[in-house]
Amino acid sequence: MRSSNRASLERATLLDVLCSARICHVGVVVAGLPRVVPTVFGVDPNGPDSEGTLYLHGSVASRSMSDAPEQDICVTTTVVDGLVLARSAFHHSMNYRSAVVVGRPRRVEDADERIRALDAIVDQVVPGRSAHLRSHTRKELAATAILALPMYEASVKSRAGGPADDDHDIRQSDVWAGVVPVWEAIGDAEPAENLAEEIPVPDHVDALGRNAFRR
Amino acid sequence: MRSSNRASLERATLLDVLCSARICHVGVVVAGLPRVVPTVFGVDPNGPDSEGTLYLHGSVASRSMSDAPEQDICVTTTVVDGLVLARSAFHHSMNYRSAVVVGRPRRVEDADERIRALDAIVDQVVPGRSAHLRSHTRKELAATAILALPMYEASVKSRAGGPADDDHDIRQSDVWAGVVPVWEAIGDAEPAENLAEEIPVPDHVDALGRNAFRR
Repeated sequence: MRSSNRASLERATLLDVLCSARICHVGVVVAGLPRVVPTVFGVDPNGPDSEGTLYLHGSVASRSMSDAPEQDICVTTTVVDGLVLARSAFHHSMNYRSAVVVGRPRRVEDADERIRALDAIVDQVVPGRSAHLRSHTRKELAATAILALPMYEASVKSRAGGPADDDHDIRQSDVWAGVVPVWEAIGDAEPAENLAEEIPVPDHVDALGRNAFRR
Repeated sequence: MRSSNRASLERATLLDVLCSARICHVGVVVAGLPRVVPTVFGVDPNGPDSEGTLYLHGSVASRSMSDAPEQDICVTTTVVDGLVLARSAFHHSMNYRSAVVVGRPRRVEDADERIRALDAIVDQVVPGRSAHLRSHTRKELAATAILALPMYEASVKSRAGGPADDDHDIRQSDVWAGVVPVWEAIGDAEPAENLAEEIPVPDHVDALGRNAFRR
């Protein structure tokens, strides 16, 4: 495969893994110690950074993250696809797809980019939802620090397929072996207690359930 | 509430969150930079460490993790329970439960503890499975580095409930708001290609699906 083909394939895989994940785990170093915090995120493949931009709320790890523009961070997203049950404990595993993006985030100051970033974060949770929401208020924008991470330094790891048992176990074992598929189930939307009764569940929310059971 | 009651409640919550998670994200510092790696783990509430023991494969982050006994690590597990859709982008959120365990791991050297640790890791993936597997071979045990982390320094964070919209949005907005529940779906077990046909799916594997749809 030519390297340009491989690069675009890897980029497509990276975007696919990022888009499959609901949350990411952000790693920062605080006083020399690692801290890993779960948070929502957004992706703009055509963002202003090299190879696209990953957006985070700057408040994510509260004080530790407010130092982040001056330090590298690591953003990892992992989707579990299956439990791999082998004949031996040794070969038990997971089928999964995981993306890692590392780098030094910049604080997003540009007003238009801040709005696009917040929309990307909402649309990562519910694709298409941002278009249905009112504009951000000045107060809301002022209260939200946003960090942008270039998607340039990124990698994807994955495992798929059945267990990799040793030959003698395959021949001799009477233990069941195989894969138990795992995915994200989406339940019926539960309206907020204070929602006016005449407001129906919109299509972009219904679509979450329609698109969930892909197996 | 008396503080001893609260402590045992917090401990029960911690164990509940850890047991609900398939994988954890381990944070380490490598050459001053944070690295976050997904991996399987095991929990022994009665393990030899203070407040119980969390076990990890020492190979988890390959070279970076082989230095781990001399450095603190951060183990974070997060279970997403729901997507919180507010009237405004600002109040979008997730319902989740997340546990963080930090500390300096020790390398597990004791032969019996190494076996219990590997069993705990298998049983975290499929409860009850380790009892059905053959013993670990010497070669397998020699090939597996195991790290133990005391569950002493741990915390749990969570969010539950509906969106927390601003009053004027609740009064004026015609945007649907509420929660979309999310959980882990378990598919039908897929036998390994080379599995003898006469081996049926055992009850501990069937139980995964029975126990999965708890909503």
